[in-house]
Amino acid sequence: MPELHTSRFLRACRREPTDRTPVWFMRQAGRYMPEYRAIRARHGFLDMVKTPELAAEITMQPVQAFDIDAAIIYADILPPLEGMGLHLTYEQGEGPVIHNPIASMADIAALAQPDPRETVAYTLDAVRLVKRQLGERMPLIGFSGAPFTLASYAIEGGGSREYRRTKQLMYREPAAWHALMGKRARLISDYAIAQIEAGADAIQLFDSWAGALAPADYAAFVLPYVQQVIAAIRESAAGEQGSASNPPIIYFGTGLGGMYGLLRQSGADVIGVDWRSTLDDAWAQLGPGFAVQGNLDPHTLFAPWELIERRAADVLDRAAGRPGHIFNLGHGILTETPVENVARLANLVHEYSSTS
Amino acid sequence: MPELHTSRFLRACRREPTDRTPVWFMRQAGRYMPEYRAIRARHGFLDMVKTPELAAEITMQPVQAFDIDAAIIYADILPPLEGMGLHLTYEQGEGPVIHNPIASMADIAALAQPDPRETVAYTLDAVRLVKRQLGERMPLIGFSGAPFTLASYAIEGGGSREYRRTKQLMYREPAAWHALMGKRARLISDYAIAQIEAGADAIQLFDSWAGALAPADYAAFVLPYVQQVIAAIRESAAGEQGSASNPPIIYFGTGLGGMYGLLRQSGADVIGVDWRSTLDDAWAQLGPGFAVQGNLDPHTLFAPWELIERRAADVLDRAAGRPGHIFNLGHGILTETPVENVARLANLVHEYSSTS
Repeated sequence: MPELHTSRFLRACRREPTDRTPVWFMRQAGRYMPEYRAIRARHGFLDMVKTPELAAEITMQPVQAFDIDAAIIYADILPPLEGMGLHLTYEQGEGPVIHNPIASMADIAALAQPDPRETVAYTLDAVRLVKRQLGERMPLIGFSGAPFTLASYAIEGGGSREYRRTKQLMYREPAAWHALMGKRARLISDYAIAQIEAGADAIQLFDSWAGALAPADYAAFVLPYVQQVIAAIRESAAGEQGSASNPPIIYFGTGLGGMYGLLRQSGADVIGVDWRSTLDDAWAQLGPGFAVQGNLDPHTLFAPWELIERRAADVLDRAAGRPGHIFNLGHGILTETPVENVARLANLVHEYSSTS
Repeated sequence: MPELHTSRFLRACRREPTDRTPVWFMRQAGRYMPEYRAIRARHGFLDMVKTPELAAEITMQPVQAFDIDAAIIYADILPPLEGMGLHLTYEQGEGPVIHNPIASMADIAALAQPDPRETVAYTLDAVRLVKRQLGERMPLIGFSGAPFTLASYAIEGGGSREYRRTKQLMYREPAAWHALMGKRARLISDYAIAQIEAGADAIQLFDSWAGALAPADYAAFVLPYVQQVIAAIRESAAGEQGSASNPPIIYFGTGLGGMYGLLRQSGADVIGVDWRSTLDDAWAQLGPGFAVQGNLDPHTLFAPWELIERRAADVLDRAAGRPGHIFNLGHGILTETPVENVARLANLVHEYSSTS
């Protein structure tokens, strides 16, 4: 697929020059879009994720609505945990709840090591459907939660502010922690590899909550599993397709401003940067061997257009036309974001960065 | 008071060499201590804060229990807002609730500009009582919330994860935002000056939630008010006492890993660093003109002693004996922290850093 291979998004992931800065948005398919709400009114959240036709339709909504450079499969990071034996529901207004959270080595030993080709087949089917609809129009990003973030949900039983149980398991039962992270890492790389086999052109690992950790703890308890996941994906892709078409791997987290030095060891191609650092600071700390993705505060999209424009231009000015910048928000689009601001922002990024 | 002036803590704030690294702990007087729980069983939280004899007794509890180098007045950042007209309660298990949160310019115009000598007299009385009990034994730190963090509580009506309303007011009604921050800044500097007059030897400004912001927003909407507060405290102290005995000002926040460059402009003497950056990284970004305070993850105190020891030694190794390090946690002590670990940690800091 030579055309996709030279798309703006994939070129930027490889730090090759592009005619304009590529742009997509985390959670670009979501409740802020009326087309999405129309489907959501008739279906539960997990139904939408688990029905390939619906997931494909939702994936395509922002592709049709905005001038963006990549699609991302409509899915969620938690359903792959169900195959391990965790019981997941989404409560109205409360977010995800895991009803049998992990508390001990015995719980971890009892977790299954499922084959995501069977247990998350619905998302793989959705990837195939989307690829057929997208054709050569733009690349499709597959994704997975990263080991720490998935572990924190499984241990806390849902979202958390402090990750108290997660850190206590990590500190007090390191053997249990490492067993859990090992199982998670294998699930994640298997799942990412299956998405690539189904047609995904890139993989983003969401380690949204890893910023809760001190760098020393991240280095000891988390980074080895991020490296393991990324190495396994690379090895499989190299075997399958030859290294020239290796799908790029994006590693994203929030609150990682003190850890860019460590992330150099992650093995990722692209580092997603949240809004709490300036893009040039983060890039300088990562060094020239990485592409960077980001980094406008999603709340900025609620501002008057003049301020959105100023802040977006500031991000692009800090990237300063260096090859390897993918414009994005610093985290997912928020529920009540005005749709017109998303549309205008995609256009602004292309116009402002145009080299022609 | 020549002896206090040459105490370890105040010397370190001024970046002068000390025989051992000084140590104190944010929220060192709190529910993890049985002596505290004994008082709490008989009194409501706001009663404890507003009864000078109780606040003084609680302030002294960690001074008596641990080998620490500074006391911090037992108080809370929110009660000073009551004098502005905000109705504050603490709900069991939910934290603070402000029942008439700020939503508009009209709300802000209606806020009183109280004299904290009248409206927070109880904390000033507690400062006087503690100073009498402490004598020359160790310095007493007074404190206040910083403008952004106090504004976020007043706008959100309590704690928040995303600060959505706060950011929307900031972006959409900048005139209202600046009016609110101006009133807050004056309240804070008045309150800090009154604490110094009552005997406080240093002031810490808690901007715990400023890390929610992008650096560009922090620079535009927050930093000018931090500078204003610090400049006003300095000016008053210089007028009162001559510049030699200026009480040092500590500025603390969490999640500021991407903002150390900006904090160089704060005017503070000491920057409190949370656990998400390594101390040497943060210090390098701040430059040699600052003392630094921190930065062990408070959750580490739940770990086995060997890990606590290793992580604390790592913090001290990264400070590398440079004058101007005050050992502390990266945020307040957590409720269920084992008391014996706090005691051992204070001793460890002194022993490990001893130059004799």
